[in-house]
Amino acid sequence: MDKGARVKNLQRRLLESDIDAALLIHSRDVYYYAGTAQPCILVVTPSDYFLIVRRALDFVLNETWLENSKIIGNGSFKEARGRLNAIGINHERLGLEMDIVPTELFLKITGIFGGFQPVDVSGAIMAQRMQKDPGEVDLVRTACRIMKAGHDRVLEVLSEGLTELDLAAEVEFAHRKAGHEGILSFRNFDFYISRGPLSSGENLFKVSGFTNTITGTGLSPAVPAGPSGRKIKWGDLVVVDIPTCYHGYHCDETRTYVLGPANPPVADLFEALREISDTVIASLRDGVTCGEIFDAAYAHAQKLGVAEYFLGLPPRKANFVGHGIGLDANEPPVLFQDSSFILRSNFVLTVEIHLTHSQHGAVKLEDVVLVKENGAEILSVTPRDLFSI
Amino acid sequence: MDKGARVKNLQRRLLESDIDAALLIHSRDVYYYAGTAQPCILVVTPSDYFLIVRRALDFVLNETWLENSKIIGNGSFKEARGRLNAIGINHERLGLEMDIVPTELFLKITGIFGGFQPVDVSGAIMAQRMQKDPGEVDLVRTACRIMKAGHDRVLEVLSEGLTELDLAAEVEFAHRKAGHEGILSFRNFDFYISRGPLSSGENLFKVSGFTNTITGTGLSPAVPAGPSGRKIKWGDLVVVDIPTCYHGYHCDETRTYVLGPANPPVADLFEALREISDTVIASLRDGVTCGEIFDAAYAHAQKLGVAEYFLGLPPRKANFVGHGIGLDANEPPVLFQDSSFILRSNFVLTVEIHLTHSQHGAVKLEDVVLVKENGAEILSVTPRDLFSI
Repeated sequence: MDKGARVKNLQRRLLESDIDAALLIHSRDVYYYAGTAQPCILVVTPSDYFLIVRRALDFVLNETWLENSKIIGNGSFKEARGRLNAIGINHERLGLEMDIVPTELFLKITGIFGGFQPVDVSGAIMAQRMQKDPGEVDLVRTACRIMKAGHDRVLEVLSEGLTELDLAAEVEFAHRKAGHEGILSFRNFDFYISRGPLSSGENLFKVSGFTNTITGTGLSPAVPAGPSGRKIKWGDLVVVDIPTCYHGYHCDETRTYVLGPANPPVADLFEALREISDTVIASLRDGVTCGEIFDAAYAHAQKLGVAEYFLGLPPRKANFVGHGIGLDANEPPVLFQDSSFILRSNFVLTVEIHLTHSQHGAVKLEDVVLVKENGAEILSVTPRDLFSI
Repeated sequence: MDKGARVKNLQRRLLESDIDAALLIHSRDVYYYAGTAQPCILVVTPSDYFLIVRRALDFVLNETWLENSKIIGNGSFKEARGRLNAIGINHERLGLEMDIVPTELFLKITGIFGGFQPVDVSGAIMAQRMQKDPGEVDLVRTACRIMKAGHDRVLEVLSEGLTELDLAAEVEFAHRKAGHEGILSFRNFDFYISRGPLSSGENLFKVSGFTNTITGTGLSPAVPAGPSGRKIKWGDLVVVDIPTCYHGYHCDETRTYVLGPANPPVADLFEALREISDTVIASLRDGVTCGEIFDAAYAHAQKLGVAEYFLGLPPRKANFVGHGIGLDANEPPVLFQDSSFILRSNFVLTVEIHLTHSQHGAVKLEDVVLVKENGAEILSVTPRDLFSI
């Protein structure tokens, strides 16, 4: 798919949603449609578009794939209003990214666009962004290769007495040297997970509040997720779930390590986990619903006798087995229990499952996969094993 | 100052602003008042308060300094409404963090609080957060020590052929090993600067759009700031401005390096920069305005004949010489030209100045300082030198 077709695709969606003009300002959306993450206002109507650049016009002109005639330098929201005015759009439905634009800015924009009726356009954008084109899939593949550098580093350095922080620092360094962009994107105004979850030993039972998975406890209550100062001990399970980003596209992948030989019950627990994950991946295809995927996972957990441990212990059991991923580390759709949302070809998803045994601890496996017409391809390149050090 | 006094201080501010109840949900604000960053709704009225916990009650009970009787588990916005109702608050002015809460969530909350008049409470919160107590200053001091580990690492590794990314990876690794929290906080819904700016050679002239300072160009247009893949050459200037965070509190500090002996014009430029910075720091005290500080800097730049280079080249000259810092890396006040905002004792600020010479490149110096009644104390512990490698 030609990147220039992305705006056209959005124009079709605006038409379907009776949106007369959309103002896109969040850098992830602007980057998706225009190829630049500089401060801009991308104005799209069903039949036209223009990119109003707020700063760094020199960067924008180097980066964007939009036509030069559509680029307006040193602009503002008033400029956008004036230009819409000039093409006869004055008081219609105005699409804004209402899931992420803060209230104060929203009030400022709607003040300038008095007479317009603001409506959310993020749903339409995210629906489009779910379906990746081959170029996007290639960037996710590279993010997956960067991820492997981190897991390889764990195999080199994990040893007794290392703290969770020491281990995370090594993983993060390996990611960065391999080209990690230095930042993760979450379409959330308040999401603090350190550089990413890492947890070991008894910390595996401590689930911080941002999500019902293996979170780690962090270095302080200010950022209560990610690695802590806990020293890793002989026999510990260690779960490493630190995402990567390449050219804006993420990989989110988890591997479980054990320092020393795995006890048979732990090895069995991981074998069950991998079987459930395999079942999920084998169930993915164009046309299946998120809820069906969740049910397949749960049914297999029951069959293997591990339903009790499936997705954690009460009251913090998760109710999803994966999520979309792309320009954000967490994107729709989420593979929620009971969701009737239908998966389509070219969705890129994580398959993310953990089993928590109240005695033996937790094992987790997460991979990035590409949904195809009749199946799914695993994009992760790290072996899907329980690594015994 | 007792941390428990923070809520009382806010209650006084609510009374002054005629706000009958405030709902605080952003984790930085909740952490400041309650000591936990778990998902909560902190409800404050001029005469009462309670903390409604949405998830991870076990973490909250371990972390918070608020009285147990004020903690309500597994709550929601409806719970908050019901409890306000019960104390006779039904249709009054409702304070919300309108600068950062997204529109969609704002509409959800105001739907539940029908009859209330929403007003912004972030101004009152940030005004309070500007004035640091001794415990907060100590945490900034630790963040400054973590920062020095990064600058020390540059001195160890900077050499010809290293890329900007290689150098940044080393700095970030040193920060992390020294206790950096893994994340930076910006009260901004869309701020992508990689792990922090690093720039060298001709990249020093390329100013990305997020702010008018030395930004670096990044690894891709998706995150157009921070280190790039550029190889550092003999004679290059290198500006390293990668912030740190400890227990939620930040240090933002910049040092300039030259690979090889500094040419006399570059050494002179840096000497002028340090003199201007010294002048700013000597001008800081309780009662002075931000604009007066800016003017002192500019007047000294004129006196030294470097006004042309002061804060960059047109059209991307900056109009500020520092900013508040604390639980966010960038906080009010900003030391803006023409600002009549008055600085007070116990503000923690950065003093951040760069000189860009169209021929020789850019030098930058940034330190963290504590404003006192009759002066300022530098909290940064890295020598304020041009480092020649």
